[in-house]
Amino acid sequence: MYIPTLLLDEQKCRRNIASMAEKARKHGLFFRPHFKTHQSAEIGEWFRAEGVTGITVSSLSMAAYFAQHGWEDITVAFSCNVLEINQINALAAKVRLGILVESLSVLQYLHEKLQHPVCIWIKIDSGYHRTGIEPHETDLLDGLMDFLRNNSPKLVFKGLLTHSGHSYKARSMAEIKAIHQHSIKAMLGLWKRYNALFPNMLLSVGDTPTCSLMEEWEGVNEMRVGNFAFYDAMQHNIGSCTEQQVAVAVACPVVAKHLKRRQIVIYGGAVHLSKDKFVLPDGSDCFGRVAQYNPQGGWHWLPLPNRVVALSQEHGVVELEPSYWEQYKEGDSLLVIPAHSCLTADLYANYQTLDGKLISKFFLP
Amino acid sequence: MYIPTLLLDEQKCRRNIASMAEKARKHGLFFRPHFKTHQSAEIGEWFRAEGVTGITVSSLSMAAYFAQHGWEDITVAFSCNVLEINQINALAAKVRLGILVESLSVLQYLHEKLQHPVCIWIKIDSGYHRTGIEPHETDLLDGLMDFLRNNSPKLVFKGLLTHSGHSYKARSMAEIKAIHQHSIKAMLGLWKRYNALFPNMLLSVGDTPTCSLMEEWEGVNEMRVGNFAFYDAMQHNIGSCTEQQVAVAVACPVVAKHLKRRQIVIYGGAVHLSKDKFVLPDGSDCFGRVAQYNPQGGWHWLPLPNRVVALSQEHGVVELEPSYWEQYKEGDSLLVIPAHSCLTADLYANYQTLDGKLISKFFLP
Repeated sequence: MYIPTLLLDEQKCRRNIASMAEKARKHGLFFRPHFKTHQSAEIGEWFRAEGVTGITVSSLSMAAYFAQHGWEDITVAFSCNVLEINQINALAAKVRLGILVESLSVLQYLHEKLQHPVCIWIKIDSGYHRTGIEPHETDLLDGLMDFLRNNSPKLVFKGLLTHSGHSYKARSMAEIKAIHQHSIKAMLGLWKRYNALFPNMLLSVGDTPTCSLMEEWEGVNEMRVGNFAFYDAMQHNIGSCTEQQVAVAVACPVVAKHLKRRQIVIYGGAVHLSKDKFVLPDGSDCFGRVAQYNPQGGWHWLPLPNRVVALSQEHGVVELEPSYWEQYKEGDSLLVIPAHSCLTADLYANYQTLDGKLISKFFLP
Repeated sequence: MYIPTLLLDEQKCRRNIASMAEKARKHGLFFRPHFKTHQSAEIGEWFRAEGVTGITVSSLSMAAYFAQHGWEDITVAFSCNVLEINQINALAAKVRLGILVESLSVLQYLHEKLQHPVCIWIKIDSGYHRTGIEPHETDLLDGLMDFLRNNSPKLVFKGLLTHSGHSYKARSMAEIKAIHQHSIKAMLGLWKRYNALFPNMLLSVGDTPTCSLMEEWEGVNEMRVGNFAFYDAMQHNIGSCTEQQVAVAVACPVVAKHLKRRQIVIYGGAVHLSKDKFVLPDGSDCFGRVAQYNPQGGWHWLPLPNRVVALSQEHGVVELEPSYWEQYKEGDSLLVIPAHSCLTADLYANYQTLDGKLISKFFLP
């Protein structure tokens, strides 16, 4: 590992998958995991081994990749991009494709241009305020429902879908619970409003903090969680996972040491980790946590404040406490637990497992 | 452009290159542009047309790419990674390779392992505090100089090199000037100290703000500036360039509009723009500025506060003032001037010029 290398602990990852699959079963939820985190056909097979038959992705190109690898039930959890109508039609000819809609104009466009049936999910904004229709915007929702009831059989209405991404900003179980309850309540309210019109309407949710920690899923039908397969330092900071559950790390060569600042410089920058970060309870930035190989397998994390404090294009700056300082020299490899594993994994063409196996992934600019 | 597409205004880029080449000539500086920004053999030819013969890159893999494309004088401006000794030896057999050293142990390692002559630059920390030896650390510097004088002819000492990356934090001409003068003074002080031992010792500098704006280069030999070929919204915010000089933009499909928040959502997220940002004078975050095609060619920027205010994996959230609101609908393409063009360009396998030509680039995980 002479250049930055994305390591995957296969055992941990398989355990995360198995335990989330079990949780979904226990609550009677259809488990439609989000594959944007790992983006790998081979890792997809680990989900299939747990009984997964339907998946979520974040782009049509990623959907095409997984369709090529035998997945036949794929939701693209991204507001429909009408410029990709040709890609939508091509995919819908081959697989059961789900897409997200949040405006009447897009629905009308699809009605005119679709060549095959497509599953339509209406995106609800349950508080994240990124995309979706807010639950109180009932005029808009009524209009969409009317259109779906009276139009093309190619528009196969499936239900309401939300992503409570604001749970990423939560820092306590109480906050996550409040977000979860608010979101579920809003979804159930809408379900009641439209249930008479669409008796088979489903409710789909999915964000790693609530799916990891919450146990009340009454009325919900589908869980689209993704990041949990790897977790990361940010999820650990939120409280979604333990250190032992985090399944990825980046091995970075040490290239310089600066005693006065207790900083070491690694070959491992924004192009290897992504520039995403989170803020620690003491207000400092964290671009990644430091870990060390465990002779028993896997790795163990160094305590805070040992972390990546800055990133430029190819450089990472790591702060180390005195007790760890002497353990590193130029030419060593330092393990970084990424702040946000989805964005880190996106930068690589493959994973290397702890037993040295290369696992390829979707990798398209 | 139905998916996020990296656009390049070839004319602007060529003008930026020509004018920096002219500035280097005027000041008697060897122009060794940093190719980590564009990472493209074809764009490299635009530099060659301006008389460039030596280049800078940020990794050995990038050096290998440009060596394959006919470049024979390449400095890897990154603290030597001894784990890549095989790559160093392989490249040094083919090209005049320069590497950066800042510790005696690395120098000793190279002395033992190098199979071919390699140009050695000592990295000086002139205030950025990322890598390098601080000018007052004369014991360490004396030790390196002694070693270089008395050892292997394969260690070809070239001179002192610095990168005043702290100029990126400057927000006025006066601040940039102070950084520049401090840095040059430190470099000249060291030159005087070691000049008697190494009469041919060179001084190499390079960061886009000072190289763009400063006119005093007395005593400096080499300029390694890189970002200037494209510039970006961050450099514009620093004051390094005008809007008219910025040569890249990302065309992003509009996928949703949210009137209440005056926000539109684009297909263009952290994996298309990078999560880098800068802080505007009013304290708000800017992940990119909004621009529009200019019927006369190129694009013009919308005034602030129109900008990208948030990024997740595939989504970008753009805030628009009322006067621009009606100009966009789902299915349109919105142009984003990236916050940091180096990190944005790194995410793509090619550029699309304004006349539709595809320009390929180095693209390796």
